[in-house]
Amino acid sequence: MQLSKATENSLSGSQRFVFFFSDVKNANSPQNVAVLGNKAAQLCEMTSIGLNVPKGFAVSTHACREFFMAGKKWPGGLEQELLAAIERLESETGKKFGSTENPLFVSVRSGSPVSMPGMMDTILNLGMNDSTVHAFAKNTENPRAAWDSYRRLVQMFGEVVFGIEPQLFEKEISGLKQKNGHVHDADLSAKDLEELTQKFRQILKEKTGHDFPQEVFPALAMAVSAVFESWNSKRATAYRRIHGLDDSLGTAATIQEMVFGNLGNDSGTGVGFTRNPSNGEKQLFGEFLANAQGEDIVAGIRTPLSLEELKKTMPRILEELSATGHLLETHYRDMQDFEFTVEKGKLFLLQTRNAKRTAQSCVKTAFDFCAEDLISKQQAVLRVSPKEVERLLHPQLDQNSKKLAQLIARGIPASPGAAVGKIVFSAQRALELKQKNAEEKIILVREETSAEDIEGMNAAEGILTARGGATSHAAVICRAMGKCCVAGSNDIHVKDNKLFVKNAKTVLEELETVSLDGYTGEVFIGGLHTVEPEITEELSGLLSWADSFSRMSVRANADTIQDAVVARKLGAKGIGLCRTEHMFFAGERITAMREMILSRTEEQRNRALVKLKAFQKEDFTGIFTAMDGLPVTIRLLDPPLHEFLPKEAKDIEELSEKTGLEKELLEKAVKEMSEANPMLGFRGVRLGVVFPEIYEMQAKAVFEAAVEAKKSGAKVKLEIMIPLVFDEKEMQHSKKLVLDAAQKTLQGEELDFSVGTMIELPRACITADKIAQHADFFSFGTNDLTQTTFGISRDDAAKFLGPYIEKKAVEKDPFVELDRNGVGELVKIALEKGRLTKPKLKAGICGEHGGDPHSIEFCHNAGLDYVSCSPYRVPVARMAAAHAALSG
Amino acid sequence: MQLSKATENSLSGSQRFVFFFSDVKNANSPQNVAVLGNKAAQLCEMTSIGLNVPKGFAVSTHACREFFMAGKKWPGGLEQELLAAIERLESETGKKFGSTENPLFVSVRSGSPVSMPGMMDTILNLGMNDSTVHAFAKNTENPRAAWDSYRRLVQMFGEVVFGIEPQLFEKEISGLKQKNGHVHDADLSAKDLEELTQKFRQILKEKTGHDFPQEVFPALAMAVSAVFESWNSKRATAYRRIHGLDDSLGTAATIQEMVFGNLGNDSGTGVGFTRNPSNGEKQLFGEFLANAQGEDIVAGIRTPLSLEELKKTMPRILEELSATGHLLETHYRDMQDFEFTVEKGKLFLLQTRNAKRTAQSCVKTAFDFCAEDLISKQQAVLRVSPKEVERLLHPQLDQNSKKLAQLIARGIPASPGAAVGKIVFSAQRALELKQKNAEEKIILVREETSAEDIEGMNAAEGILTARGGATSHAAVICRAMGKCCVAGSNDIHVKDNKLFVKNAKTVLEELETVSLDGYTGEVFIGGLHTVEPEITEELSGLLSWADSFSRMSVRANADTIQDAVVARKLGAKGIGLCRTEHMFFAGERITAMREMILSRTEEQRNRALVKLKAFQKEDFTGIFTAMDGLPVTIRLLDPPLHEFLPKEAKDIEELSEKTGLEKELLEKAVKEMSEANPMLGFRGVRLGVVFPEIYEMQAKAVFEAAVEAKKSGAKVKLEIMIPLVFDEKEMQHSKKLVLDAAQKTLQGEELDFSVGTMIELPRACITADKIAQHADFFSFGTNDLTQTTFGISRDDAAKFLGPYIEKKAVEKDPFVELDRNGVGELVKIALEKGRLTKPKLKAGICGEHGGDPHSIEFCHNAGLDYVSCSPYRVPVARMAAAHAALSG
Repeated sequence: MQLSKATENSLSGSQRFVFFFSDVKNANSPQNVAVLGNKAAQLCEMTSIGLNVPKGFAVSTHACREFFMAGKKWPGGLEQELLAAIERLESETGKKFGSTENPLFVSVRSGSPVSMPGMMDTILNLGMNDSTVHAFAKNTENPRAAWDSYRRLVQMFGEVVFGIEPQLFEKEISGLKQKNGHVHDADLSAKDLEELTQKFRQILKEKTGHDFPQEVFPALAMAVSAVFESWNSKRATAYRRIHGLDDSLGTAATIQEMVFGNLGNDSGTGVGFTRNPSNGEKQLFGEFLANAQGEDIVAGIRTPLSLEELKKTMPRILEELSATGHLLETHYRDMQDFEFTVEKGKLFLLQTRNAKRTAQSCVKTAFDFCAEDLISKQQAVLRVSPKEVERLLHPQLDQNSKKLAQLIARGIPASPGAAVGKIVFSAQRALELKQKNAEEKIILVREETSAEDIEGMNAAEGILTARGGATSHAAVICRAMGKCCVAGSNDIHVKDNKLFVKNAKTVLEELETVSLDGYTGEVFIGGLHTVEPEITEELSGLLSWADSFSRMSVRANADTIQDAVVARKLGAKGIGLCRTEHMFFAGERITAMREMILSRTEEQRNRALVKLKAFQKEDFTGIFTAMDGLPVTIRLLDPPLHEFLPKEAKDIEELSEKTGLEKELLEKAVKEMSEANPMLGFRGVRLGVVFPEIYEMQAKAVFEAAVEAKKSGAKVKLEIMIPLVFDEKEMQHSKKLVLDAAQKTLQGEELDFSVGTMIELPRACITADKIAQHADFFSFGTNDLTQTTFGISRDDAAKFLGPYIEKKAVEKDPFVELDRNGVGELVKIALEKGRLTKPKLKAGICGEHGGDPHSIEFCHNAGLDYVSCSPYRVPVARMAAAHAALSG
Repeated sequence: MQLSKATENSLSGSQRFVFFFSDVKNANSPQNVAVLGNKAAQLCEMTSIGLNVPKGFAVSTHACREFFMAGKKWPGGLEQELLAAIERLESETGKKFGSTENPLFVSVRSGSPVSMPGMMDTILNLGMNDSTVHAFAKNTENPRAAWDSYRRLVQMFGEVVFGIEPQLFEKEISGLKQKNGHVHDADLSAKDLEELTQKFRQILKEKTGHDFPQEVFPALAMAVSAVFESWNSKRATAYRRIHGLDDSLGTAATIQEMVFGNLGNDSGTGVGFTRNPSNGEKQLFGEFLANAQGEDIVAGIRTPLSLEELKKTMPRILEELSATGHLLETHYRDMQDFEFTVEKGKLFLLQTRNAKRTAQSCVKTAFDFCAEDLISKQQAVLRVSPKEVERLLHPQLDQNSKKLAQLIARGIPASPGAAVGKIVFSAQRALELKQKNAEEKIILVREETSAEDIEGMNAAEGILTARGGATSHAAVICRAMGKCCVAGSNDIHVKDNKLFVKNAKTVLEELETVSLDGYTGEVFIGGLHTVEPEITEELSGLLSWADSFSRMSVRANADTIQDAVVARKLGAKGIGLCRTEHMFFAGERITAMREMILSRTEEQRNRALVKLKAFQKEDFTGIFTAMDGLPVTIRLLDPPLHEFLPKEAKDIEELSEKTGLEKELLEKAVKEMSEANPMLGFRGVRLGVVFPEIYEMQAKAVFEAAVEAKKSGAKVKLEIMIPLVFDEKEMQHSKKLVLDAAQKTLQGEELDFSVGTMIELPRACITADKIAQHADFFSFGTNDLTQTTFGISRDDAAKFLGPYIEKKAVEKDPFVELDRNGVGELVKIALEKGRLTKPKLKAGICGEHGGDPHSIEFCHNAGLDYVSCSPYRVPVARMAAAHAALSG
């Protein structure tokens, strides 16, 4: 039954190209969306739930694909179907296409299976010609609206069908306004607009040699072809590349009865969000432009009213919009972004879709929708991607820093976050600088942005515009990209590659630094400090739901008490990597460390080790106390000893004075200890094997600290980790050393501890079955494992990894996203072999991949027990672990 | 039938401890040798083929093991068996143990299942006491021989049973000789020897509190225990460690009727080799000491006669010895080393065994035995280990260098080869220096060596002694170890840690350098040049047989025409690795290379590349011509470019002058290009991807050279190899680049070529299935693969790999012998995956492991098609490849 019903409702097998909104059942099924495009599918769906949608039909994506396959020719039968559909539309609307009495006008819109807002083309008012414009004027008693619609059609047709530059038309409008002393487009009279229409038609004739077509059906056919072709426009192609969309999806063309928002002050057009897309508050949000058509609002050319303001001018419409919002959310169970037109006081819904939103809004709405019983906890968790959590953890401008800084402008806080960088004035320039230096931080400053700017926006840290509102192109795109945006700042002006700040004598040149506050809309001169954001109640709630769905736990890499405190606060379930060497760098410690390294007698060495032990013990006690019963993984000394020695002559001299060792002797020692390839040198467990007294000191410090922390009431769960093991014998040796130290130090005192190893060399992976005989746990050090598996030194990689990524010789930087084919395979081999020896062997990851969502997904699938990452990435990792578990 | 016979003949299940020589069938079966020890088994075997062997029996190794297991107590029943055996021996010889009329004397010798020459103890003349000595004197009418035998027994009993220092006895002998004005032992009279016997008994009494036992049976029992205990003497233990023998084998004790070589001038004792153990010539070889017993000859104390000299004194005995030699070789089908005694004109064979021999002798005898139809070609090949081939390829002193050098002494050329090193005067010191620095070359100089010196001899390059002949301890051990030895040089004298050269005013101190010629016995002051040896006809023959049994072929790593010529001469079947970068270092080339690297315009770069191409083309043409149809694998540029730049200020200045580039600019370039870990840096195919023009130039040079070589009549089989690939895309990119260059250069000309890759990174192994899609062959670069698999930089490894090997944290240096558990597993994974994609994928190895016999065995078993090694190791590798195939 279910199957046959699904089949019955599916359009994908149909031989037809045209589908009426009111005919389609189950429009939102993936198969049907693939045929209808997202926009038409939504119109069908909206129609089916009883919303007042202008009547119309879709020409399927299938037609578009056949169009391209045939070398941009219409597939056989399409023309006939289109003619028949227009006839049916005429009969349903009671209007007639091209009629001089009761003419039907239609919009022709693009609509791909995946929404690509603003990337493709639209033609409105189709059906206008020299005859129908008069009929329209007569019927509506509004010649101004008639000519305005006609001139718009000619303009769009020119741009979309013939590819004429928009500026040619805009110049005519500006010229005419100037001539007549007008400020706004609305000031133009019917006469003016008629004159404009003629001028636009002249432009068409001049540029293409063609007259504007007076036959309405051929005009419609040309419009449909142009919409299909806009699938392969430069900006659409760029958008698909940035978002990883398939080029073969194609677009549908949606043909729909026109409704007019430009028929006077009881008309207008608007966009609405069922909730606030910036912060997620449950409150209808949007903008309305009276006596205007849709494209005016999307382009951000005039500054619109907020929907709230309709309370005064159109209270009934506002009520209807509220009811519509509720209906949409109840039906779609997600925040919606819809377009509407009011034609002479009657509300029409033009489209709806899941709203793009800021990470903050995403988190709040996911949480609230669950609280409102619209979705389940799982759904709520899955609705917030780890990337969105990451965005929420983006820095904000430091408040104190802001107080001292020079505020030069304010704008609309269009996309939250903070951005600090050098200003540039074109997308092209932003792209150039970024390609030259991937580390460059850029702020793109524009009068307003357009679809052509996409790639440059992607390269920038943040966007600042002089025009446009919260739903302008810049705002929408920035929210989608998670970039900070300050839009429509009236305080600034961009000209001749300079940023002029009004009401101030400031003029900024290219590459000067500014700071944007995406939460307040403030713009400052200079690079301000940024701070980490707080975790909201909603995020906290979602993360705790996330934890309940995860199989893996998330730990933090934390070397200090401060790190440990932050890690706990951000929900870490333990410390997965405590690097003991970082403790040796501060203050007196480095001197003691150097004394130890340079000691020439056992007495000297032991004296230095005693000092170091005291420091380590103190640190460990603090960390155990902070973690109070959560596991703490302490890695014994890893870097080569020469890393602790001074390199510069000046520092060597200073050390000589401090220690009383001769300068020449120190220089010799530094030289002797230097290595050709320190990454592959005398480090890790190799130090522990050759100088057992160092690891012994560390182990004793750890155990003494554990005893002390327990005495003061803390619980201790200790894991000692041996780095850079390549053979079981190293592990056997080290484990014995640690157990001996434990016996000596603990003297019978109970302590929950284990001894494991980092798996960070290919040989450790390959011999993991043997290593597991002596290791209580594995922790994959994927930084070093990536270096050795690829044979790439991270320190030296920039020179070729950049060109590699550019030439697509590697897909992604393997130090950012764990390489599944190579490193991942070794991880799997190691796990399999390790668990052959110890079926319940605990295993985690503590490389930087532990904070990368894609890598975390791999870790889940590979069967790891935990990931460990930097404290500030813990929330991202918690969400990623849940997603991996829920989508597994 | 066969099985039951084997069982019937096996002693291993027997409950008995004692076995008579004449009772044992099939003595040489491994089970029986394990019970009887090698020596007794040989006596049984010799008895069975009709040789005149003194009668006797063995106390089994089983008894020895039980002895140790019981805490050095005799197992139950052994005493009774021994008593019964003595009774049977009495009846077979017609003598009586302890009889004052017709006394039986026996030897008690050690004999483990594996021969350990001179490492364990022997007691002769057992049965002598205050009564039997008189009976012996009376029966032989030779009181001198009687007392000499008695005093020897007391001496040996003192040393072996009670552990008294030999010097105490020797001092008495010297003292007595001095007192009486004698020079040789033979000058001592019966009276003197009786006096010595008494003095020796006093030493026993003084040192142990025990009288020499007059009861013969208890004395025998004590001797048997002492022989068992000598299994665990310091020198025996050291020998077993060096030769990798099992400590649990144990030794048998062989008890045998004494025959006396010291009964006058118609008596004597000797050792013989059926052929010359030094050069393999088919000629009875050995030494004879008249009127003496065996230990005199083994200890090398008196200089013996050569066997040839018996022609004058004992022609019948010489004939019998020749016949015996022939019988032994026909039976054992190998060169034998035998001991014999002549008692009053009657020849007794005491022992035989496969002769230790020099590599030269080993090769010649293997070849000759096959030519004489005694063994098959397979057997001949298997008889020569790769290690022996290697020894044959040991350097010799350069003849010209010898002419100019100061010859200070001549000695017996006791073990061939050449040795150059610093002199030391004790084994202990040799060991110390070697442990401090494994690279240290040491010559151990001694008056004579003894079993205690084993470890020091192992540490030395060569041995020089003042005393002892071609069968002295030093000579025998050095031949076994393949070390150069000059023995018994009368021109030198060692005293007070100085080497005095007689007839010269030279005195050499410790650590001065000398050079030994093991072929001529010459000793020179200073370090002489050495040269590679020629390949003899026999070796050449064996190697060609070896090739016929090998599955793998052997290629050479050769970078120059000279290398290629040598490689062919030594039997390489192609070049497995031609490193193109080595061509860039000589003369003008390095300047052109530097110009290329430092070029700042495309024009500069292309100009430099044109120069380099000309050089490369010239080299490749020569190599193709030299190899004439054998495959030549050319690896494109591998090292990081900064390796070609000067590092020192002086060199930078010079380069600046040569190229006209500013010094500061050069310094900056050198600094910018330097890398933290060059081993993991910007090298290999990474250069080819980022600077395709370099690989393109190389590919064109290769193809142009191939065309030129073909034009001049040579055949060309070319393999182009891409280094350091970690991903299929690199290979895809490089292959395309090479094929494009081929198309441009060859212009339709036919050429047999393929494009493959080095597999030298773990990721290449793991993704080998994908890489194989674009690679025609794999060549394992196990040097780099070892570095990355272990995470060890070869340049920095010395600091910890030494201690690791010492602490047994690794068994062997993985850069010398391929690590089977880690690197080997990755090789297997890569092969398996590669051949999943291309079942007939050709694969070889070109790391230095390609010349190591153990690694070659692995390569055979793993299924590689060829190994490639340095030209001078090609013969070793050929032999190793055959052994791997024959023993597989």
